[in-house]
Amino acid sequence: MTADDRFRVTYRIAAVAEAEARERARGIALEQTVEIPDDVVPDGFIRDEIVGRVEHLGPDGTGAFEAVISYSPDSAGREVVQFVNVVFGNSSIQSGIRVTGIDTGPEITRRIPGARFGIAGLRRMTSRAQGGLIAPVIKPQGSTPAGLARIAARCVEGGADIIKEDHGLADQPMAPFEDRLRAVADAVGDANARSGGSALYIANVTGGGGDPIAQAHRAKELGATGVLVMPGLLGFQTVQALAEDPGFGLPIMTHPSFTGAFVLSPDFGIAHGLMYGTLQRIAGSDISVFPNVGGRFGFSEAECRSIAAACRAADGPGVPIMPSPGGGMSVERAGEMAAMYGQDVVYLIGGSLLRHGERIGEAVGAMRRALDAVEA
Amino acid sequence: MTADDRFRVTYRIAAVAEAEARERARGIALEQTVEIPDDVVPDGFIRDEIVGRVEHLGPDGTGAFEAVISYSPDSAGREVVQFVNVVFGNSSIQSGIRVTGIDTGPEITRRIPGARFGIAGLRRMTSRAQGGLIAPVIKPQGSTPAGLARIAARCVEGGADIIKEDHGLADQPMAPFEDRLRAVADAVGDANARSGGSALYIANVTGGGGDPIAQAHRAKELGATGVLVMPGLLGFQTVQALAEDPGFGLPIMTHPSFTGAFVLSPDFGIAHGLMYGTLQRIAGSDISVFPNVGGRFGFSEAECRSIAAACRAADGPGVPIMPSPGGGMSVERAGEMAAMYGQDVVYLIGGSLLRHGERIGEAVGAMRRALDAVEA
Repeated sequence: MTADDRFRVTYRIAAVAEAEARERARGIALEQTVEIPDDVVPDGFIRDEIVGRVEHLGPDGTGAFEAVISYSPDSAGREVVQFVNVVFGNSSIQSGIRVTGIDTGPEITRRIPGARFGIAGLRRMTSRAQGGLIAPVIKPQGSTPAGLARIAARCVEGGADIIKEDHGLADQPMAPFEDRLRAVADAVGDANARSGGSALYIANVTGGGGDPIAQAHRAKELGATGVLVMPGLLGFQTVQALAEDPGFGLPIMTHPSFTGAFVLSPDFGIAHGLMYGTLQRIAGSDISVFPNVGGRFGFSEAECRSIAAACRAADGPGVPIMPSPGGGMSVERAGEMAAMYGQDVVYLIGGSLLRHGERIGEAVGAMRRALDAVEA
Repeated sequence: MTADDRFRVTYRIAAVAEAEARERARGIALEQTVEIPDDVVPDGFIRDEIVGRVEHLGPDGTGAFEAVISYSPDSAGREVVQFVNVVFGNSSIQSGIRVTGIDTGPEITRRIPGARFGIAGLRRMTSRAQGGLIAPVIKPQGSTPAGLARIAARCVEGGADIIKEDHGLADQPMAPFEDRLRAVADAVGDANARSGGSALYIANVTGGGGDPIAQAHRAKELGATGVLVMPGLLGFQTVQALAEDPGFGLPIMTHPSFTGAFVLSPDFGIAHGLMYGTLQRIAGSDISVFPNVGGRFGFSEAECRSIAAACRAADGPGVPIMPSPGGGMSVERAGEMAAMYGQDVVYLIGGSLLRHGERIGEAVGAMRRALDAVEA
């Protein structure tokens, strides 16, 4: 394996002096690989190849330091989970360390291909050659399967590209997984047939207390044409296992539930673009949901732009995927949103849609027209 | 379902005025359940039962506010993932909110039983009726299966109660999962037979890029007598699925990799005792690993004590489990550690053990004698 095969991670290290930053960087290089003191590291392959290498260290311009550490692809094998474990496993528990860059390098790219469909595949499947995709969210939790199915049908008739389930729909007594899936899949299928549409039905998968990979396959049998997965709760392996399985072969949308702590402090955790862009791509997500600027969450416009850029970067990892801002989207903001996100984007439209009751389809149609007007 | 069946979550809310805190609490109650604006919530079952209820709000004594919100068990169903999703899914992304208390209540306790073995079961399996258990960690990453097996054998002969694999051993070219498991399981089995011991072999499970639940079953076939799972990377459902499966029936140790961001700020995330105690118990962990005070991580003595207390609380959820501090453990600190943690504890002994080379078993024996001396 050549030096260029190694993958590189950039860390922001809070330290007063360069010597302290260098010692912390060396500590990360050990902690994330062999997890033993330097004097115990065996000479040869383990010391030369497996232990992380501090390739660069210097001031980062914000009063902290930036360290680039390279790792052997063999530390990760071909597992996304183990890749992330090397990037930021135990070091996540040490304050003052934030992951600010990931360069997977050619070997990890060969081993872990990323998304199966990406932007191009989603446009083909939804027959939406250009313009932002509209994805109304089916909710609320507590509704019956029939109630959720009726909302889904209205939204398809209104021109939705994707029917996305709320991430809070699991396997609950008021709408058990099997009943919900059958009802909504049938409703979306019938509405597509009536309207000549090709809306996807992206069903939420939580595992039912058991195995979410098995449950995703069951979702497909029941008629889902895509799945929603929360990697912060279900692990990146759930995404990877489904993305790499040709026998599954449906698009995957990932949801940020439970992941806020990773991004909220500049002093630790993981940068926004990496968390909701790069890592989702490596895992195999086709559409990455994140909290939109101006909604109920505190992400800035710059943070949202960095996420969209990381999702769509032409140079990988894997194929470009769709960023999917959620929260604060409305007909009134369509122009502003289109100017900010461009066309390769999936707009989530959530709770506010329910204000329209049985006329929810008309609200979806109004959003389509507003986007078409500004995107033309 | 009665009001007492609801589960209760305490949140610390950073706010200047009580009215602001109350509005944020009401926001959490909506966000974590129906995820729609208040004016759109359907009357009846959804408004009355499903939407979270702010049961208490008041100053918390640190300049912030404390809100207790109750939720319907039917929001969670019987899934640990969905339970955590209700406790702190989207609200995790809103700064100024920290989970500081979880009371599962009787109905969730019935639906989600927790650990299969706990402290009592582990003592029975390891034949260690009293005193702290000693768990040397097999590493480093990059070693061959034979090299890891040799270390494991020496540690069993020295009196180890548990052979724990490093969480960085996955399915890598230098020690593929199947080869590693066979070699270490055989070595531990042989050493147990020679020494009359009953050390467990807790193998690390990452899924190999696929399904960690299936891989855990394979680990058992290959001779592992317990598994190590990283819920921060593999999800709590991996723990729940294994803990609840009588066909699996092995103890589960959980590891904190990738979870640091949850606890590092007092302003957001999850309190230490909940993250490494309560949530692990709900998921079904029998032994919860966490970074020990005085090692390479910054946890305070009070934080470590809160974790140990949460693992061992007599009133649930589920049966009491073993806290397992890692880092900074040595013969010299045995007295201090035994005074701090008492007897129901699994001491991880890591990289420093490797200094002893082929005499690593003697180092394990010295630790046993040091603990016995102070615990007698």
